[in-house]
Amino acid sequence: MGSGELRIIPIQGIPEARPGDSVAELVLAGMAASSLAGEPGDVLVVTQKVVSKAEGRLVRLADVEPSPLAIEYAARWERDPRQVELVLRESVRIVRMDRGLIIAETRHGFVCANAGVDLSNVTPGYAALLPLDPDRSAATIRRELCELTGWEPAVIISDTFGRAWRNGIVNVAIGVAGLRPLRDYRGLRDPHGNELRVTVIAVADELAAAAELVMGKTEGCPAAIIRGFAYEPGDGTARELVMPPERDLFR
Amino acid sequence: MGSGELRIIPIQGIPEARPGDSVAELVLAGMAASSLAGEPGDVLVVTQKVVSKAEGRLVRLADVEPSPLAIEYAARWERDPRQVELVLRESVRIVRMDRGLIIAETRHGFVCANAGVDLSNVTPGYAALLPLDPDRSAATIRRELCELTGWEPAVIISDTFGRAWRNGIVNVAIGVAGLRPLRDYRGLRDPHGNELRVTVIAVADELAAAAELVMGKTEGCPAAIIRGFAYEPGDGTARELVMPPERDLFR
Repeated sequence: MGSGELRIIPIQGIPEARPGDSVAELVLAGMAASSLAGEPGDVLVVTQKVVSKAEGRLVRLADVEPSPLAIEYAARWERDPRQVELVLRESVRIVRMDRGLIIAETRHGFVCANAGVDLSNVTPGYAALLPLDPDRSAATIRRELCELTGWEPAVIISDTFGRAWRNGIVNVAIGVAGLRPLRDYRGLRDPHGNELRVTVIAVADELAAAAELVMGKTEGCPAAIIRGFAYEPGDGTARELVMPPERDLFR
Repeated sequence: MGSGELRIIPIQGIPEARPGDSVAELVLAGMAASSLAGEPGDVLVVTQKVVSKAEGRLVRLADVEPSPLAIEYAARWERDPRQVELVLRESVRIVRMDRGLIIAETRHGFVCANAGVDLSNVTPGYAALLPLDPDRSAATIRRELCELTGWEPAVIISDTFGRAWRNGIVNVAIGVAGLRPLRDYRGLRDPHGNELRVTVIAVADELAAAAELVMGKTEGCPAAIIRGFAYEPGDGTARELVMPPERDLFR
């Protein structure tokens, strides 16, 4: 591994998560199956889906009673009214609701499609909701990994989000533990001596995006290790990745 | 390098670009200085800044005559009226113009802050504009690398963009050559048998984000190689990464 080089290592063989499972134990099972050992300075990225399943954040659609709004919107755009109902329940603010889409703010402050409610990669007939507190989920994984093995990586919970103006979805960080999610270059100078005034890099989002490249959507690889990235340790929270309302031009 | 693993390798020692330079030759000089050899299947990510400099897309601020709108807006928000003028000239549509910010659509269709006009990492007193045709820039780099050495990586031109609703900026792809920028999972099935209906991943943006992690902003490392990613070869264009107006809820 060369100087300054980064490795992104998929963790294959992670068992399917069931409610009550320890995500740390699932990750360790996959690492054992792949003969992977953790190293100091690693970043572990785990998809939201495995965390939500382990935390029991699954809802049986047959149990959901849709509201009149959900029924009407679903009928108009050929969607499942029970999923629309779940989206409305998971939302604290609707940003856009048009053309069958719902872009909403979740209680965590994230603005995303369907408030994170997702029917893919779950048992048919169920929907997965976002973890209640993804930062806490990340901290739990980190603590348990350390207790079980002494390995204490920075942990990122990732999810795939759409973006305004850009096509396609990308992985972003919705929970973090052990690292600062933003890298702040403000006040530093570039090689030309210009002061960098607005450069705050969302490194946790870039780490999540990098991890997605080895995960794929169909192969059931819900975690990856990023090795060689000199992250800033600290008690970060994914809330730092949310644009503060007073600076948000797109509320 | 394990199965399915990705490596992200910074290319150090790339000389400062001057108008008329061949970016391919600059990259090769850096690779020689770092004892790096290209391999089949590599993705090369190059920052917009080095491309813009090599293509002479630099403007001396002292030569810019600001319009009344630029003067007024700059005065109100304590900005440089000449930079504001350049932003207006590089824009085909203003999406938001408030609180000192200008979010604009460029002629390429990208929506970003300042229409890509940037004062960092350039000689003080100058501004860098986006390349006129970043796809063509990427194709030229790719062709020249192949002619000079036989190495024909997929090429991505990257730039750092802000995002609606999220704090911090991330690298995205503004030009591509030799790869499909989107990976389309629609119609495939997840391990549970659910058909994946809306999953189109912006892999070129994720590759650009991954590359940023080894580049930094202050260290003058404007390129990286991503090795081990099974991209889909093809004549892609970064325009595929722009949300089509008819599907864009945030125009």
